[in-house]
Amino acid sequence: MSGRLIGIGVGPGDPELVTLKALRALGEADLVVHFAKAGNASNARAIAAVHLKAGVEELPLFYPVTSEQPRSGHRYRETIREFYDASASLLAAHLDAGRAVAVICEGDPLFYGSYMHLHVRLAARYPTQVIAGVTGMSGCWSAAGAPIAQGDDVLVVLPATLPEAELARRLADADAAVIMKLGRHLAKVRRVIEGAGRLDRAIYVERGSSASAVTMRLADKGDDTSPYFAIVLVPGWEQDP
Amino acid sequence: MSGRLIGIGVGPGDPELVTLKALRALGEADLVVHFAKAGNASNARAIAAVHLKAGVEELPLFYPVTSEQPRSGHRYRETIREFYDASASLLAAHLDAGRAVAVICEGDPLFYGSYMHLHVRLAARYPTQVIAGVTGMSGCWSAAGAPIAQGDDVLVVLPATLPEAELARRLADADAAVIMKLGRHLAKVRRVIEGAGRLDRAIYVERGSSASAVTMRLADKGDDTSPYFAIVLVPGWEQDP
Repeated sequence: MSGRLIGIGVGPGDPELVTLKALRALGEADLVVHFAKAGNASNARAIAAVHLKAGVEELPLFYPVTSEQPRSGHRYRETIREFYDASASLLAAHLDAGRAVAVICEGDPLFYGSYMHLHVRLAARYPTQVIAGVTGMSGCWSAAGAPIAQGDDVLVVLPATLPEAELARRLADADAAVIMKLGRHLAKVRRVIEGAGRLDRAIYVERGSSASAVTMRLADKGDDTSPYFAIVLVPGWEQDP
Repeated sequence: MSGRLIGIGVGPGDPELVTLKALRALGEADLVVHFAKAGNASNARAIAAVHLKAGVEELPLFYPVTSEQPRSGHRYRETIREFYDASASLLAAHLDAGRAVAVICEGDPLFYGSYMHLHVRLAARYPTQVIAGVTGMSGCWSAAGAPIAQGDDVLVVLPATLPEAELARRLADADAAVIMKLGRHLAKVRRVIEGAGRLDRAIYVERGSSASAVTMRLADKGDDTSPYFAIVLVPGWEQDP
């Protein structure tokens, strides 16, 4: 009898933003898997910590490279592909032994998450369930109390890593935008938003769903330093109702 | 002492995809408010039903017009604005009486939801909290087991109501797309996706997070009828890893 794979979204950071479905799946898991940077604790594990069964077996998977690197390089891609292949093989051994293997994911498993790399390697071979989670961006606009899009608004999700001209073009073409992975790109993002005449409406959010959340108008942020997971929201919604 | 307003996301449909935070807020609410079409039950209430306190006071707000109408018409806009104004006044009376007023919302409160129209009218006057929820689109791609976006993918959320040429232009410019509010627009959406050469990857999802969910390749859907809340997913993710 083969095991089953469960991708579990544990939400944006606040342990209370975990769903009942995620809790139940965690309670049924024989093995809890999480990704982390080498030398760091897993964000997903930190969120789920209070919900884990005492003594449940865990398997941390440490990225061999940092996600801040451009993914376009051949060497980077080979390294990360080998890592996902090897990780999937590790999980397959547990699945072949009939175990329920839960991969916990910050936010939502299939929205810019690492789980999907295991999913595409394993879902065709084993019974698989994906449990949707609250995304990081939902956590951010909720913490900021900022309605992001209404009615027929077009919303675009942009990585801050895009070239400045492309960011500007895409922002000009959208009613609402979420700009992710700010890291060292905040100065560029600020120029683009100011150039679009939307600086007054833009909101900067750091650690959106934690007790230490920072939310402020981007215009009020006095420096251009920001962590990798900070985001900028450009709400749509120019028109009532 | 004034009351407090709480916008609660109850997720995409499955009552188990409600968060612990939403449950706690529901338990503390003196009044539970929900939007519905006249003559219909509220989707949000149907999702939250098993989680409501026995006998808790409820206030349904019935839309005076249908959301399928174009919102551009002057008359429509006046009517709906008056409705939101009147609804906010109703809630303000409860808030002035010191009550905890919870507005329950399908999906996430600030993502294409009606709650935001109350939020912008009340949040500056009363203590307000927004509890993020799992969005309908997360529920859909999870039900379909379809990774939607990875790495530096650009994701765009498009209403199917857009003109065909605009849909085509925007789809050509995005790595991944979510096309919402299909209703009677499915034939147009299918033409656009086929024209973009992406029909093979597109996924049609109906009632994504309910027991009666339908997910299939859009190419396999034999007709062009779909309910308003059906969506089409065009996953990004052309490239490994």
